[in-house]
This record gives sequence, C-alpha cells and structure tokens, in this order.
Amino acid sequence: MSLIVQKFGGSSVADAEGIKRVAKRIVETRKAGNDVVVAVSAMGDTTDELLDLAHEVAPLPEPRELDMLLTAGERISMALLAMAIKSLGYDARSFTGSQAGMITDARHGAARIVDVTPVRLRSAVDEGAIVIVAGFQGFNRDTKDITTLGRGGSDTTAVALAAALEADICEIYTDVDGVFTADPRVVQKARKIDRITSEEMLELAAAGAKVLYIRAVEYARRHGVTLHVRSSFNNNEGTIVYNPAEGETVEEPIIAGVATDMSEAKITVVGVPDIPGKAAYIFKIVAKTNANVDMIVQNVSSAAGLTDISFTVPKSDGQAALTALTNEQSNVGFKSLQYDDQIGKLALVGAGMRTNTGVSAKLFEALYQAGINIEMISTSEIRISVVTRADTLADALRAVHSAFGLDGDEDAVVHAGTGR
Amino acid sequence: MSLIVQKFGGSSVADAEGIKRVAKRIVETRKAGNDVVVAVSAMGDTTDELLDLAHEVAPLPEPRELDMLLTAGERISMALLAMAIKSLGYDARSFTGSQAGMITDARHGAARIVDVTPVRLRSAVDEGAIVIVAGFQGFNRDTKDITTLGRGGSDTTAVALAAALEADICEIYTDVDGVFTADPRVVQKARKIDRITSEEMLELAAAGAKVLYIRAVEYARRHGVTLHVRSSFNNNEGTIVYNPAEGETVEEPIIAGVATDMSEAKITVVGVPDIPGKAAYIFKIVAKTNANVDMIVQNVSSAAGLTDISFTVPKSDGQAALTALTNEQSNVGFKSLQYDDQIGKLALVGAGMRTNTGVSAKLFEALYQAGINIEMISTSEIRISVVTRADTLADALRAVHSAFGLDGDEDAVVHAGTGR
Repeated sequence: MSLIVQKFGGSSVADAEGIKRVAKRIVETRKAGNDVVVAVSAMGDTTDELLDLAHEVAPLPEPRELDMLLTAGERISMALLAMAIKSLGYDARSFTGSQAGMITDARHGAARIVDVTPVRLRSAVDEGAIVIVAGFQGFNRDTKDITTLGRGGSDTTAVALAAALEADICEIYTDVDGVFTADPRVVQKARKIDRITSEEMLELAAAGAKVLYIRAVEYARRHGVTLHVRSSFNNNEGTIVYNPAEGETVEEPIIAGVATDMSEAKITVVGVPDIPGKAAYIFKIVAKTNANVDMIVQNVSSAAGLTDISFTVPKSDGQAALTALTNEQSNVGFKSLQYDDQIGKLALVGAGMRTNTGVSAKLFEALYQAGINIEMISTSEIRISVVTRADTLADALRAVHSAFGLDGDEDAVVHAGTGR
Repeated sequence: MSLIVQKFGGSSVADAEGIKRVAKRIVETRKAGNDVVVAVSAMGDTTDELLDLAHEVAPLPEPRELDMLLTAGERISMALLAMAIKSLGYDARSFTGSQAGMITDARHGAARIVDVTPVRLRSAVDEGAIVIVAGFQGFNRDTKDITTLGRGGSDTTAVALAAALEADICEIYTDVDGVFTADPRVVQKARKIDRITSEEMLELAAAGAKVLYIRAVEYARRHGVTLHVRSSFNNNEGTIVYNPAEGETVEEPIIAGVATDMSEAKITVVGVPDIPGKAAYIFKIVAKTNANVDMIVQNVSSAAGLTDISFTVPKSDGQAALTALTNEQSNVGFKSLQYDDQIGKLALVGAGMRTNTGVSAKLFEALYQAGINIEMISTSEIRISVVTRADTLADALRAVHSAFGLDGDEDAVVHAGTGR
C-alpha cells in the first residue's frame, strides 16, 4: 500500500461543486488501494477577500491577527472537503496546521517550517481515515500562536507532509496539465514536460514559472520528495519532478524549458566611482530594504573612472530601493538613478547545459534573428537569463522556444482554471 | 480597576464598519480605566452561510467537521476586531475557544462547558492587552477536537469567561435597548425593564423572549454573574439581570414581563386508554426523538374510559414526534393523532407571583374581555403560560400587558438591527 500526499489549490476547491469533484478524486485514489493525506488551500479568492476585509478595518493589520484571520480560509475548505468525503462513505478527518504538527518559527506571514510532528495524522491514517490538512498554516511552540507560510504555502505544506510521512509521491493538483516548456498562453506549441529534475524546476520557478513555488521545490529537493504536478480537471499524467540519485547519469535534454517574468524592474546607478567596495556598499543599502535583488550587471568603466551598475528587483520592491539609495547618494557618490519598469526577463533552463557548449551563442543568435535587443545577461550553471524590452518578451519566448527545438507537434491545450 | 466582559453578537459586527464601531466602543471602556475581555460572534450571517455550504457538499455533514467549519466564523471576526483595536493604538490579542481554555464535553454542535482555564487570557490582561475571545466554541480534552456550544453559544462564552475571570459585570451587547416587558414590535407601550432577577429572566427566555439565551442565563445564575443587556448602537443603560443574595428580600413587581412564542405546535393523542402508565409510555416515545416537550395537558376522562393528551413541541420537532407515535399506535392503543401548528403561547412571568394571589384569575379575565379563547394552561412558581390561536396572540399580548399595568408612558423605540 502506497502513501500518497495530494495538494489541491484554491481554484480546484473554489465552490461546492469543486469540493465535491475533489472529494471524488481523493476517494478514487483511496479506492485504488492507497493511503491518502491531502493538503488543501482556501476556497477560490477567500484569502484575498479576507485580506481586503483586514485592510478595511486596519491600515496596517497586526501580523499575528492577520495570520489568525487568514487561517480561517483553509479551516473552511478542509472541513467541507472532509464532510464531502464522509458523505461518499469514506472516513475522513480534517486537521489544522497546529493539529497536524506543522511547527514553524514565529515569523507571521512568512513562517519557515522548523519541524513536522504528524502524530495525529499518522494514527488517523493507521485507522484507515483519509486525512485532510489545512495548507499554508503552522504553529509556533514558543508563542503558542498560529502562523502562515506565505503565498504558495499550501505547496510547501504538502511537500513537508510528504517528507515527514515518507510518502511515495506528492501530487500537486493545479489547473494546468503540468510543467510546460514555456507558458502555453504565449507559445502555442509549448510541450508538457514529462520529467524534470528538481534542480531544473527550481531554476524555472525562480525565473518566473508560476506552476510551482520555489520554497516547495527547494523543500522537495532537500528532503528527496518526488512531485507529480498534474491537473485536477482530468486524469492525464502530468510532470514528474524528481531528484536523481547521487552520481546517477540521466540522459537529459539540453534545455528543459524557458521561463519568462514581467514582474521585475531595472534600477541603474549611474556614475559610480570605480573603486573597490562601492558595489558592495550599494547592495548593502538595497539589502536593508529587504528588496529581492535578482540580476546584477556592471558596465565597463568609462575613461573618467566612473561605472554604471544595473540590477533588477521585483517592481513591488522598487520604490523602497530607490528611496534608500537616494538617501545615501552623497555617501556612495553616484551621479543619478534610473528606474525602468518596462523590462521582461527570459530564462533558458537545462541541466544538459553543463556538458553542452554553445547554448548561449545559440540563444543570442535566435534573439538577434528575431530582432530583439538584449539589455542584461546573467548565467548560472544550468540557466541563462536575458533582459529585453517588456513588449518584445513574447516574441523572444517564441523565437527561443522554436530555436531550441522545444515546439511540440500539436498546440498546447490551455485549461480554463477558475483562478490563481 | 474593574474587569468587564463584553459580548458582541453577529449583527453588531456584520461588516467592516460594524467592527470598527465595536472596536471604538471597546476602547472607550478601556479608556475609562477598565480591563476588558470580549466574546465575539461570527460576522452577520456567516454561520448560516457556512451551514448552507456544508449542506451543499454533504446531506448530513459530519458533526466534528461541521464544528471545525463553523468555528472559522468567529476566527474571522475576532481577528478583525483585534486588528481594528490595535490600529486605534491599544494592545489587543485574539484567542480561539481552545486557546482561551474553554473546555467542553465532546458533544459536537451542542457541547457543554466542563471547565474554563483562562490562563492565557489572564496573563494577556495582566500585560495590559484587551482580550478578544471567539464566542460559541470550545475544545474537548480527550478527543483534542474543536467543539461548538450551539446557537446562542457566544452569550454562554461571555458568561463563562465572566465567571472564570471573576469579572465585575458581563455586558451583553445586542441590537435592542435591553429586556422589555413585552415584544416592542407588538406592544407599542412596552417598557424597558431596568432590573430583573435571573430567575425571572430564565422564565422569560424559556417562554420565548429572544434577547438572551436560556443557557447563558442559567450559567450566570449558577455562577452569580451579573448581566447588563444593552444596545451596541447607543450608550443607554440597558437591563441589569442580577442574582439576589440568599435571603435578600427585594421589592419585586408582581409581573416582570410577558413573553410570546409562535414556534410551537400542539399534538393531541386522541382516545388514550385511561389506565396508569399510558402517559409515561407516550412521553417516553416522544423523548426518544429528542423532541423538546413544553406544555402538557391531559383532559378529563370520557365516560368510555378514554382520555386525550395534548402537548406542545417546537414545530421543527413535530414531524419526528408524530412518526414515532404512529409507529407505536398499536402498543399505546390510542385512536388518532391531531397536529396543530396554528397555536401561540403567552407567558406571564414575575417573582412577585409567589406572594400575590389572583394573578391567574386576572390573566384569564383580561383574555376573556379581549374575546380570546384559552386552549391550554400551565403554571410554574413564577410563571403562567396559556396557549391561544396563533392569530389572536398579538391581541392577547396587548390585552395582558395593559391589564397588568405594564404599559409605559411613551412608545418603545425599536432599533433597526441588521439581523438576528
């Protein structure tokens, strides 16, 4: 008998119909002879609606109370899901994050899991019950307060449960068929990826692929959990995200997929004195604002001993970074700041890059042929990212996808999900 | 420094505006130099909406899961209320029933409080925080499961907290000005009662007065908690529900108030053999359906050795009682059943009845003068109840209210509450 952990997101349980559909799906897995543990998100837009209410009563809601509030969302969906399963004739029990032993630190709104002690879950499973756990939430032992893991927390809950319960697989149900070689809404011939390493998945997620959250993939990688990303609207096989054994040589395609991201802005610090320590000083200032710096490029020094430093941050972090830098202008000694939120980022990811040369040349050639200008370049061992104008990003994606032979024979089917 | 427990119902916190208004009110109490502990219900119709959802996904929702579901309602209101108070510059912390130490038995949906251990509340109060507690909910120590106290549970939560914390007073905020001598929507000259004993309040509540729940009044009576029933929409003094000290002689009016109730139906068991044990057998059958029998009348035996037994039950229990009796017809040996849901009940309550004779005669005379027929009569030490036709109940109420000199000088002001 296998133990399967399944995660259903908010769009899968958006209404009573969705909950009944998911209940049937869970029962099918049980009928097939598996033990089942489910992590479930809040219904549809519940979390956003609760957030709106919070901001109506308090301009800056207290983080402890905000977590107390938001965790009501999964409490509703998990109880409904458990009773729907019960009414299909199968034993089911719901558990909050705290009841499930999801122990976190005390950072409200962005808590990290420090321990998982699923004692009650294990005994419920042993008694033959299907276990439903509230995603996204945890509990701090010191303050005895309820915490939340931040956006995408339900994926992390599922993976953490799979690790703690030594599940055979962790199925992440979503409103698309799996992980694609590119966003199928932009690239019609995007292909579903059958298998991908967690390392590649991590790079794709970091580069903007929305289907899985980085933290969940990281957790799966660290704890050796195999993921199966698949649709809750059909029975198709989705994408397996696996962890190759140490020393295992896998026949990997050179390129796994291409991710794009329009959520970043570029800040250029113009006229920085080209002397040691200036760059470090600039990024210390930015780091203090908690802005999440992604790509960094330093241009060649000009004759006058000055250089320009450009970097990208999420648009939501942009203003804070600009303000912090402006306040320190005299200390750094730069001339001016430029802010550009009309950029797009494209990242080519593939473990096969390690052993294949010429990938970047081929990428630049494809973009050149499509008439697209490259503004920044950054690379990691298995990824090449470039920044272009935002309005050329879709063309860039299609050109690169085609140049690397990723196009499938048929158009991708995009399922109409009901939400995020 | 006094410790005041305040309870706000769903209609007081129906939306963001309501929550902000209640937050201000709580802060005023704090500013006046009091420690404040608040029990809050779910917002507006949240509980009913969650119940509807439950019935959409499961015809007979599992009681454990239903409690898990419904407790999300107070979790939302209490967190919003705490953050609203915080944003007014006062420390506030919300606690679930389980965090507040509200220990109950395991009867889901109708749990009884077995212990209150408000350790966390006490230390939060000692640290100067305003404490917000989820009404209606508790926790069973053996199953480690969440429970609910049933409808009106938030009143009981407030009273239980007041008892456990030895509060100076327990204020029950509602959408009317207090307890009235009669329903002011029916009797324009109904007067707000300034002070009433818990014993009288208990009889009024049992007889249909909606302003307070019986269980909460019982709990207050048993634990010596003084209640103040008042409006959350103004600062008027409401009604004090107090417990006279043992042996204390209070100058009590003969009649405290008149309650009416249209929620019951009358079942008549026709042609019951008039031999010992038959009545006991009938009510054993009815009791097995959990129907809540209120008034019972057995008519004089007919010459044929047969008698009729009539009793009232809530209309919602009527069908189950009828079915159970029909199934046992041959064992009981009755001739037929009559079901009548067009009845109304009027109850006159007053501790002064104990020492004043002639109250029932005066009641019957008033009804006779108003041309109203009495179908059933039942009395307790401080209450007389009569059953009339439903469509004459309002006339009966006005006649009795006037005959006992309860009419005030001015018309009662009925506040437009937003809900139940």
